[in-house]
Amino acid sequence: MSLGEFSIIERYFTSRSHRDDVLLGVGDDAALLKLPPGMQLAVSIDTLVAGRHFPADTAAEAIGHKALAVNLSDMAAMGAEPAWATLALTLPEPDPIFIEAFAGGFFRLAQAYGIELVGGDTVRGPLTVTVQIHGLVPDGEALLRSGACPGDYLYITGNLGDAGGGLGLRQGGNCSDSQAAAELLARLDYPEPRVAEGCALRGVASAAIDISDGLLADLGHILERSGCAAEIDLGALPLSPALRGCVTNQQERLKLALSAGDDYELCFAVPPHRRSELEALSRSWSCAVSCIGRVSEGAGITLKGEGSDALQGLVAGFDHFRR
Amino acid sequence: MSLGEFSIIERYFTSRSHRDDVLLGVGDDAALLKLPPGMQLAVSIDTLVAGRHFPADTAAEAIGHKALAVNLSDMAAMGAEPAWATLALTLPEPDPIFIEAFAGGFFRLAQAYGIELVGGDTVRGPLTVTVQIHGLVPDGEALLRSGACPGDYLYITGNLGDAGGGLGLRQGGNCSDSQAAAELLARLDYPEPRVAEGCALRGVASAAIDISDGLLADLGHILERSGCAAEIDLGALPLSPALRGCVTNQQERLKLALSAGDDYELCFAVPPHRRSELEALSRSWSCAVSCIGRVSEGAGITLKGEGSDALQGLVAGFDHFRR
Repeated sequence: MSLGEFSIIERYFTSRSHRDDVLLGVGDDAALLKLPPGMQLAVSIDTLVAGRHFPADTAAEAIGHKALAVNLSDMAAMGAEPAWATLALTLPEPDPIFIEAFAGGFFRLAQAYGIELVGGDTVRGPLTVTVQIHGLVPDGEALLRSGACPGDYLYITGNLGDAGGGLGLRQGGNCSDSQAAAELLARLDYPEPRVAEGCALRGVASAAIDISDGLLADLGHILERSGCAAEIDLGALPLSPALRGCVTNQQERLKLALSAGDDYELCFAVPPHRRSELEALSRSWSCAVSCIGRVSEGAGITLKGEGSDALQGLVAGFDHFRR
Repeated sequence: MSLGEFSIIERYFTSRSHRDDVLLGVGDDAALLKLPPGMQLAVSIDTLVAGRHFPADTAAEAIGHKALAVNLSDMAAMGAEPAWATLALTLPEPDPIFIEAFAGGFFRLAQAYGIELVGGDTVRGPLTVTVQIHGLVPDGEALLRSGACPGDYLYITGNLGDAGGGLGLRQGGNCSDSQAAAELLARLDYPEPRVAEGCALRGVASAAIDISDGLLADLGHILERSGCAAEIDLGALPLSPALRGCVTNQQERLKLALSAGDDYELCFAVPPHRRSELEALSRSWSCAVSCIGRVSEGAGITLKGEGSDALQGLVAGFDHFRR
């Protein structure tokens, strides 16, 4: 970190949340953190590159929000309580307007979840944002990708395909319904991580993942790790009114729901004897929850319902790409 | 992480060290780690950008080594035992030759220190390497920047200015002594973090930092945090035979020792009553240790000895830049 950059961190990136378990925050060679007994540390790191993970013209505030949100989403998928973040920010130039807006988006979300920024590095280079998140999960209670069993029900929080619809708009697509368009763009730029929902799923879900790369890709990870197959009911995929308003073709909507990424909803499996528990607890959630299919024996994903013949090719193409 | 990138991580970045305290490594939404009781978690994140933090023509193996080494050096400066690393790698293209060499350099160093790679993200973009290191330090024993007191002696491990000399060579400088030139370039490309030395300093040093930005800048951080001044004896600055062989002008050598970065030696303060303890324990170290001056009351750094009049301007220029 150069000296000029040091003052950037001091000025804009002083954490606005202060936690008792941070013994030493930004400003030394490392932060010092204290874990409570009986808890495991969950860590995840994610990089967003301008023009690849977000359109180059994305608002600085949205970039700050999203860089943290995608990491919080990883904690949600583990059933871990996010606690501390570090930020490595590569900037073409130390533009105070950009940095202030970026920090605004980052810290608004951090404060909402009580997360303290405990370390960072700001360097000059092409715009790239790396965030590492650290969370806490009680011993043995983390949600893994590997626990799904044949017979488990598959669920999704919220709606699928919205961020993909928003990306289409950002890339020049049209939508006559301006309210719907604004909703899709907000879902692309300001994803809401399902942290409370992920933590509530401890002891209920047998496996979980967050949908960053699209349902087929991410459910594929659960199935691969769990050694199972799945059947998905296309008619059960949760599509928002906004997506229906902007994307008129149902096949296109389903394609977005299956393979567009960036929704940061949770996909999770629930054993049959836990279904009523899930349904009771999800009543207090701020987002809907939808049962979209079941885990079965074997491997791969089978689509069912109207349009499945045309869309099954998506699954095959995805399998091919993975090898 | 895209699917093609997933296979890159799987193929080249499967950790070659496996620790019992890693409950879940690469391959889920987060890694799960267990801290022993009585230990604090030390975390630090650092980014290296091609052409800024290392010359663009640096060997891939050296980039992999250095990205981890600079983080291990932060642990050394805290007196923390490094344990787990995460890696966010932005690559222009998934070139297997580059990646294999990079991973070779990274993992050789990781294995030497028993560090497990527990998470990562590989994305496409301009070459940028971010590593976060996680270390363990007994409760209350971390070495901070803030503990130096007037009267403390200031020490440096190893030699100063070698990496700066190496950078001069890489940027087109000449050295008739090819053996000396090779040594300086090795110090630039393959810095050796002083991890064992940093851990041994717990309970002995009152403050410590690693020298990444140059002695004046980094000692300045100790002094600022400790509310002290320092006097440095130029004649005591440790200069290697290789630096003497390649840089014939003594003022130039001292300038490199004072202000060139990238040496990753430790600079630390030792109270007078701990000096004999330090001298006893440093006898078993693989690097030399040199007393270069003392902490005093006030603020700022005063240079003493031959050449100090000409070089005091470096200190002033540095102070000016920091504001």
